[in-house]
Amino acid sequence: MSIRIGIVGYGNIGRGVECAVLQNPDMELKAVFTRRDPENVSILTDTAQVCRVDDIIKWQGELDVVILCGGSATDLPVQTPEYAKYFNVIDTFDTHAKIPEHFANVDKSAKENGKLALISVGWDPGLFSIARLYSSSVLPQGQDYTFWGYGVSQGHSDAIRRVEGVKDAKQYTVPIEEAIDAVRNGENPTLTTAQKHIRECFVVLEDGADPVKVEETIKNMPNYFADYNTIVHFISEDELKEKHSEIPHGGVVLRSGVTGLNGEHHHVIEYKLKLDSNPEFTSSVVIAYARAVYRLANEGQTGCKTVFDIAPSYLSALSGEELRATML
Amino acid sequence: MSIRIGIVGYGNIGRGVECAVLQNPDMELKAVFTRRDPENVSILTDTAQVCRVDDIIKWQGELDVVILCGGSATDLPVQTPEYAKYFNVIDTFDTHAKIPEHFANVDKSAKENGKLALISVGWDPGLFSIARLYSSSVLPQGQDYTFWGYGVSQGHSDAIRRVEGVKDAKQYTVPIEEAIDAVRNGENPTLTTAQKHIRECFVVLEDGADPVKVEETIKNMPNYFADYNTIVHFISEDELKEKHSEIPHGGVVLRSGVTGLNGEHHHVIEYKLKLDSNPEFTSSVVIAYARAVYRLANEGQTGCKTVFDIAPSYLSALSGEELRATML
Repeated sequence: MSIRIGIVGYGNIGRGVECAVLQNPDMELKAVFTRRDPENVSILTDTAQVCRVDDIIKWQGELDVVILCGGSATDLPVQTPEYAKYFNVIDTFDTHAKIPEHFANVDKSAKENGKLALISVGWDPGLFSIARLYSSSVLPQGQDYTFWGYGVSQGHSDAIRRVEGVKDAKQYTVPIEEAIDAVRNGENPTLTTAQKHIRECFVVLEDGADPVKVEETIKNMPNYFADYNTIVHFISEDELKEKHSEIPHGGVVLRSGVTGLNGEHHHVIEYKLKLDSNPEFTSSVVIAYARAVYRLANEGQTGCKTVFDIAPSYLSALSGEELRATML
Repeated sequence: MSIRIGIVGYGNIGRGVECAVLQNPDMELKAVFTRRDPENVSILTDTAQVCRVDDIIKWQGELDVVILCGGSATDLPVQTPEYAKYFNVIDTFDTHAKIPEHFANVDKSAKENGKLALISVGWDPGLFSIARLYSSSVLPQGQDYTFWGYGVSQGHSDAIRRVEGVKDAKQYTVPIEEAIDAVRNGENPTLTTAQKHIRECFVVLEDGADPVKVEETIKNMPNYFADYNTIVHFISEDELKEKHSEIPHGGVVLRSGVTGLNGEHHHVIEYKLKLDSNPEFTSSVVIAYARAVYRLANEGQTGCKTVFDIAPSYLSALSGEELRATML
């Protein structure tokens, strides 16, 4: 029997989850739940239904894992604790500072209702967090570094779009290779986020806007750009569409540490992602963890968990025996 | 109370484990067990005892985890099932092809005696295996690649030393950067181990040996060198000692895969290690897993496990709450 998946929210992540389900023969998408009129939402999976999100509770017992694909700002803080009353759920909550609070809310709700919830799945938080955990456990005397990019930052792109005179924009976060190399060489540099990244902006101006003024406004925007080496390119709307409509991302997590009686040997652990599509990759991580949630729920586990709490073998479609024979 | 560690076998790994224990304040080395005369073995930890390996059974109840630091060829196939009768044990068994058999033997012995055993811990098998498992689960449509080096291969160094006319030798496995880049670029090349690595040999000749003949013998050695691009350097004994007495190693595990309805987006996951000391790093991995074994044994787990079966959080000295707040 397949693992029966439900999706709440059909944006980039929702569509990515749908595609990821299709790559995994042990899973089946049963339904997509949307706030829009289902008549107007067309999905890729013929055998799945499109339903109003308000009707989801009728699906109790019909779905093994429900993937919550809303935003971290306002959707997930409400949706995850709510739907964990009725289903085993996974979300991609990525507001790092609010994870403890979110965890507590979801844990309470899931435990009270005998469900299993897994929060903050993806690559950061997610695979990058796992890399940090393994590396720091193995090299307790060391330092962690995370670099992001080359990739599109949605938040920074939005910030540019709010500038007067800007019609559209895309912002790429670019890691500074020299800084990464300094870490690789064991120099243990002290680096702020601004010292690790360049911000490269591709901006389409409104007719008649002043490029000098727009560029200055962007470069001086506090928090977003003021502390960074920011590069602004003005391009046409056509060029933006043609060359900047994809959503690549990635980054690298490094741990530089020492071993030996006097720390005489240096080691570098590096975990790097280069992703053509941020939402599709995030969704692929989520779907691997859906397998884990399904299995752990069948073992009777309840409450809220994170990727830290899940043994790697639960993610794979292969048996323990197969894994030991082929992958260990 | 500290986690009480015992070490069986005081070679490179045994000493590495001892150093790793010293980096972890929640652990304490209680005893080193050796086949040599304990009088002749001096260790780094004043508070630990050196004992005859035959006396280890007297230590039942005094050690939380025993680290077996023998070789995979003849020591561990016997030692791990044997000592799993009396202790929770960890080994670094690294003969990939024989892992299923070893697992079965250790599992039987550990289960019958209510102990927990963890086999094949280190970086390959170990952290590299974990990287392969996560990556292939997240990107089911893709291909795995493992490159080893830059590092010393003990087996190949030994093979050279057996050649007539060779006094001493060190062999470095060198990954071919162009091959790694082809994988990174998503070219999905089909590569044999020989197409991924160069073998670089530093050889000290016996007095009067014929370098031409020695070089030819090395380069034509089946399995070890014949299929490879092999480079032989003849150096003096002093130079070998001065420049080649360390044991660096490392490598990279890559997964190149696609997502999307038609596989239209490409992704690369890369996990890379650069290690100044292979045995010390291996030992550091083992000691992080000793914490996991201690905790899981306290939860009542028994039998044989591998790194695949252990959730990342068990490796860290931090609590779940601390991990979520600082590392997720």
